[in-house]
Amino acid sequence: MRALELTDGFGLEHLKVVERPDPTPGHGEVLVRMRAVSLNFRDLLMVQGAYSRAAAALPITPFSDGCGVVEAVGPGVTRVKVGDRVSTLFFQNWIGGRPTLQSQMSSLGQPIPGAGRELAVFSQEGVSKVPDFLTDHQVATLPCAALTAWRALFRDGQVQAGDTVVLQGTGGVSIFGLQFARAAGLRTVITSSSDEKLERARALGAHHTHNYRTDPDWSKTVRAATDGRGADFVMEVGGAKTLQESLKSVRIGGHVSIIGVLSGPAEPLQFGWLIATSARLQGVSVGSREMFEDMCRAIDLHRIEPVVDKVFPMAEAVRAFEAMQAGEHFGKIVVDLTR
Amino acid sequence: MRALELTDGFGLEHLKVVERPDPTPGHGEVLVRMRAVSLNFRDLLMVQGAYSRAAAALPITPFSDGCGVVEAVGPGVTRVKVGDRVSTLFFQNWIGGRPTLQSQMSSLGQPIPGAGRELAVFSQEGVSKVPDFLTDHQVATLPCAALTAWRALFRDGQVQAGDTVVLQGTGGVSIFGLQFARAAGLRTVITSSSDEKLERARALGAHHTHNYRTDPDWSKTVRAATDGRGADFVMEVGGAKTLQESLKSVRIGGHVSIIGVLSGPAEPLQFGWLIATSARLQGVSVGSREMFEDMCRAIDLHRIEPVVDKVFPMAEAVRAFEAMQAGEHFGKIVVDLTR
Amino acid sequence: MRALELTDGFGLEHLKVVERPDPTPGHGEVLVRMRAVSLNFRDLLMVQGAYSRAAAALPITPFSDGCGVVEAVGPGVTRVKVGDRVSTLFFQNWIGGRPTLQSQMSSLGQPIPGAGRELAVFSQEGVSKVPDFLTDHQVATLPCAALTAWRALFRDGQVQAGDTVVLQGTGGVSIFGLQFARAAGLRTVITSSSDEKLERARALGAHHTHNYRTDPDWSKTVRAATDGRGADFVMEVGGAKTLQESLKSVRIGGHVSIIGVLSGPAEPLQFGWLIATSARLQGVSVGSREMFEDMCRAIDLHRIEPVVDKVFPMAEAVRAFEAMQAGEHFGKIVVDLTR
Amino acid sequence: MRALELTDGFGLEHLKVVERPDPTPGHGEVLVRMRAVSLNFRDLLMVQGAYSRAAAALPITPFSDGCGVVEAVGPGVTRVKVGDRVSTLFFQNWIGGRPTLQSQMSSLGQPIPGAGRELAVFSQEGVSKVPDFLTDHQVATLPCAALTAWRALFRDGQVQAGDTVVLQGTGGVSIFGLQFARAAGLRTVITSSSDEKLERARALGAHHTHNYRTDPDWSKTVRAATDGRGADFVMEVGGAKTLQESLKSVRIGGHVSIIGVLSGPAEPLQFGWLIATSARLQGVSVGSREMFEDMCRAIDLHRIEPVVDKVFPMAEAVRAFEAMQAGEHFGKIVVDLTR
Repeated sequence: MRALELTDGFGLEHLKVVERPDPTPGHGEVLVRMRAVSLNFRDLLMVQGAYSRAAAALPITPFSDGCGVVEAVGPGVTRVKVGDRVSTLFFQNWIGGRPTLQSQMSSLGQPIPGAGRELAVFSQEGVSKVPDFLTDHQVATLPCAALTAWRALFRDGQVQAGDTVVLQGTGGVSIFGLQFARAAGLRTVITSSSDEKLERARALGAHHTHNYRTDPDWSKTVRAATDGRGADFVMEVGGAKTLQESLKSVRIGGHVSIIGVLSGPAEPLQFGWLIATSARLQGVSVGSREMFEDMCRAIDLHRIEPVVDKVFPMAEAVRAFEAMQAGEHFGKIVVDLTR
Repeated sequence: MRALELTDGFGLEHLKVVERPDPTPGHGEVLVRMRAVSLNFRDLLMVQGAYSRAAAALPITPFSDGCGVVEAVGPGVTRVKVGDRVSTLFFQNWIGGRPTLQSQMSSLGQPIPGAGRELAVFSQEGVSKVPDFLTDHQVATLPCAALTAWRALFRDGQVQAGDTVVLQGTGGVSIFGLQFARAAGLRTVITSSSDEKLERARALGAHHTHNYRTDPDWSKTVRAATDGRGADFVMEVGGAKTLQESLKSVRIGGHVSIIGVLSGPAEPLQFGWLIATSARLQGVSVGSREMFEDMCRAIDLHRIEPVVDKVFPMAEAVRAFEAMQAGEHFGKIVVDLTR
Repeated sequence: MRALELTDGFGLEHLKVVERPDPTPGHGEVLVRMRAVSLNFRDLLMVQGAYSRAAAALPITPFSDGCGVVEAVGPGVTRVKVGDRVSTLFFQNWIGGRPTLQSQMSSLGQPIPGAGRELAVFSQEGVSKVPDFLTDHQVATLPCAALTAWRALFRDGQVQAGDTVVLQGTGGVSIFGLQFARAAGLRTVITSSSDEKLERARALGAHHTHNYRTDPDWSKTVRAATDGRGADFVMEVGGAKTLQESLKSVRIGGHVSIIGVLSGPAEPLQFGWLIATSARLQGVSVGSREMFEDMCRAIDLHRIEPVVDKVFPMAEAVRAFEAMQAGEHFGKIVVDLTR
Repeated sequence: MRALELTDGFGLEHLKVVERPDPTPGHGEVLVRMRAVSLNFRDLLMVQGAYSRAAAALPITPFSDGCGVVEAVGPGVTRVKVGDRVSTLFFQNWIGGRPTLQSQMSSLGQPIPGAGRELAVFSQEGVSKVPDFLTDHQVATLPCAALTAWRALFRDGQVQAGDTVVLQGTGGVSIFGLQFARAAGLRTVITSSSDEKLERARALGAHHTHNYRTDPDWSKTVRAATDGRGADFVMEVGGAKTLQESLKSVRIGGHVSIIGVLSGPAEPLQFGWLIATSARLQGVSVGSREMFEDMCRAIDLHRIEPVVDKVFPMAEAVRAFEAMQAGEHFGKIVVDLTR
């Protein structure tokens, strides 16, 4: 079978399609014929060798987020059966409850070998069935980006219908955040540097939009949208440079989910403001299988279609990463492993 | 000014329109020109003398749920100003946080004189502004029925998008429950004894319906709608006779909100089943002002229109109660105090 | 190795020590040399054939609650190593998060063969390490009774320091409830039919005691202990006959954990009272491994010593069940499997 | 009556005892004969003119935290009666539920005139009765420092018995944190720059202590105390310079309460670390009346005695501020208004 691998070094130029022996599932394991994977920023860092824990680990097969069909099961498997279409889970060992060091160390792609190959073996605990109406490409977008948005909004943020949430930019997590927020009856504000992307966001249901290139003070838009009260929830993907505006946007006692660090080196945290507002900042690192299954029920009920921006065949995986580097996508980038 | 009063005895035949002096607002109080009130089952019990705490209290002006416009304010009033349209609050003194004995004793209609009159004085803490798009009749339905449904679903039940909820019957609380559930992205199952009412419920967005007259085992419909998993939430308005089916409908660890006692004398609670399912039963008695304001934000965002079934002029308030007794309404019954 | 078994019928007279081949751990499994088990009411029902799901399952080895030492591990085991002292977990497959049908079906003793034998094989997920200072007999009391009390108080009841909790009687769950409540800084009220047992409860730290034989209205004691406010939490083990007093004892918005059904056929649930108080009733069926580990940390910090009332050697297991039937124990009954 | 006032400028040299007419309580108000106030860092900032909102507000009577006895009540007062000993509440208008802009703007001392005078009028909603066993000086320490620690631990942090908490330094909030944590059955780690203060903290029950002057890496002590798992909760009073160690100390998914900014200008927040640990940072600004009353029940049950380090007579209030500036106190500094 074919696999994507960094064999002899880091960097896009070292990402190759190689031939590897077909694996066999052991006790409690499933063999999955993979159909597609999607890219996360973490995959790019990993390929570039910038993802710290990856340092000593070559060869690496990247990709945590995949869709496939169960081809064989080992002894003791009860969760799925041959023929089931499944999604991989980012944390192979976080079933439910609080995250632990052990569950956080079970992430796919690193340290557990990733999903970017035609045939992969997983623990049965590390895959879940998915709604039928989704395409394979769409399923491949769920494990990391969608689940991060889901957990941030509904577990950590505990928003309720009628609340206002702010989504930053139009990357994968933010667009899922927008779709889930609409399904849950929330008021949505989204920011972007591009009027065209804001237009697409409005088509997905965004109530309020703000081009931060034209006007960097997007907290004004949030205040206006909430009669001055502030947003109940902000999904912070920009990191240091946007945190200031996030804190100015959030209501007293509101929640800011810290998801990404796109904007570069951090600025000082304004403690005084944090205290005055009783705001809450929480880091988010994907979620548990329980949350994934909750999310799939909502996706199914609302027929939420993940936004797949670009699809590349397996042999052109490098181009998929280049597209991510260019940063011009709206939603997710997918590699089709059947092509 | 005119007021509805039980002056010389209990029973519908004693409910009269009487002339009373115009009241004046004191410190921290507001004078409200009332436009409409809506009926709750509690008002019927009160008029009939069957509402225990009412025993010694004649004369009584019933009605906890009203809409009016602020006509004058006493010294120290900052929450509202003359000309604001407001809703009364069921608990005049439950601002936020946990209910207390003190807050529970501040209910309008009894022991605090009710809203069924042309001019009424309330503490400024006991009224709230309401969304502009609602009619006066619609506003009058919010304080008790709508807020009970809101609290049950989102505070006590803590449901999230994609969850399944069961609404029993098509009375005021259940119909609000249906509308809020749809706004919040929940899957909804509703029961009724009437196919015609189920048709109307579907028009309001119900996903699954069950006529319990045709087939009393409605838990089967719930199980089928949830792939056997059971509902996350059941709004129990029937009381003893439906509780059995509610417990058979709810998922492991699910929530049953106990709201009404319509079906008569209680049957024994099945302790063993309750333990096996880890289900939670919680009594609900309206909600706080904080919850009311959260609810109004959701109503405003989703342009939720309360279902007003029948409207009677003030002089025909007795007919409004007779309509409630007949039990054929779908949604709420209103008395217009301007007519 | 020796095992306790119901081989040819239900009833205490059929509970025998039999010789069985030594088992071998498979993939992800551990072989544990058992040292002690403790009795739960469920074990008695199972031996008597009164535990419904047991009907078709002979032969049965009862006992969900055991202490042992890991003697060998199968391939892929990482959670424990040879020589570790462990406790069995009641639900072999409830790691964390919400309970599910699957996790609830993984209870030890039935359907999964029980811990009452010298050598037993468990999934590595189904055992946990325990504090060193405890005796083997004490460890054997933790899986069911202690964890039930822990979950009821801190997960479901969400009590905080200074709150008041009511414990009914002096059985295993109630005594653990008393000890945990004291460790967590709660005010405690305990009831019993015996002054001597109440004396022992006071020695364990009970603040208030009430003999319900002398005076059945124990809610008066609770009201007096709380300046009339009512208890924040009631641990209901009596079932139908005590629920009335529990509801009269609990504060507005308080929590009643439904744990046992000792007192016989149910009486009707008072819906009106439940609604007026916004009280919450929740069934409790043990807890997850995450909760177990939380509990062990608290036991370790506070050096909480489970109360072992009586210990019987393996050959006299029948006498242990007779002691439970007699109902005169204070705390837990243990069977020592090394004797 | 005598009052402490900043009349003609900011700075300690402008803080004077002046003679003012006795006030009279209006509707819903109470007249309180004040006995003592305690100092918070905010009072020092206010006197120095460094507390931003104070800029335009001379004359100012500082002090939010006071103890007194009700001397008279205006019409409509039901919460207290003449002769009751009461504590002032920091937020005069935060009864329960979520904080709002309105409730946050009702803080005593600024913008509402403070408690540093012999006779003061408050809304009846802005005072609460307190446990009898406390001295007046002790009561005066509760409104701000004690309630901040209480809310941070039990509302925001939601710690449970057996959890580990870290207290930084030995100021008022941290010492209350230590006392409450012990009452609630938590494992406690405390830091200080002084071995003598750590000795006093151990006498109050601290399990683990760390002198950060000797060794700045106090997160090592926290990891050692928790078998490497990390603390469930860190009370961050140092601000920027200690946040790094706080984040290194907290377990995955743990909580850091941001309470103070003592250590000067902020350093950049480590977003990557925050994401990897799913840690939660939350600003804390005192708490609601509901929380205050919960706290008083716990103080009463556990006979927790607030640590009063120094007491000054009214005429020497300036010396009290100088003592705070010197920073050598352990616990709270009080001004006695009866002397």
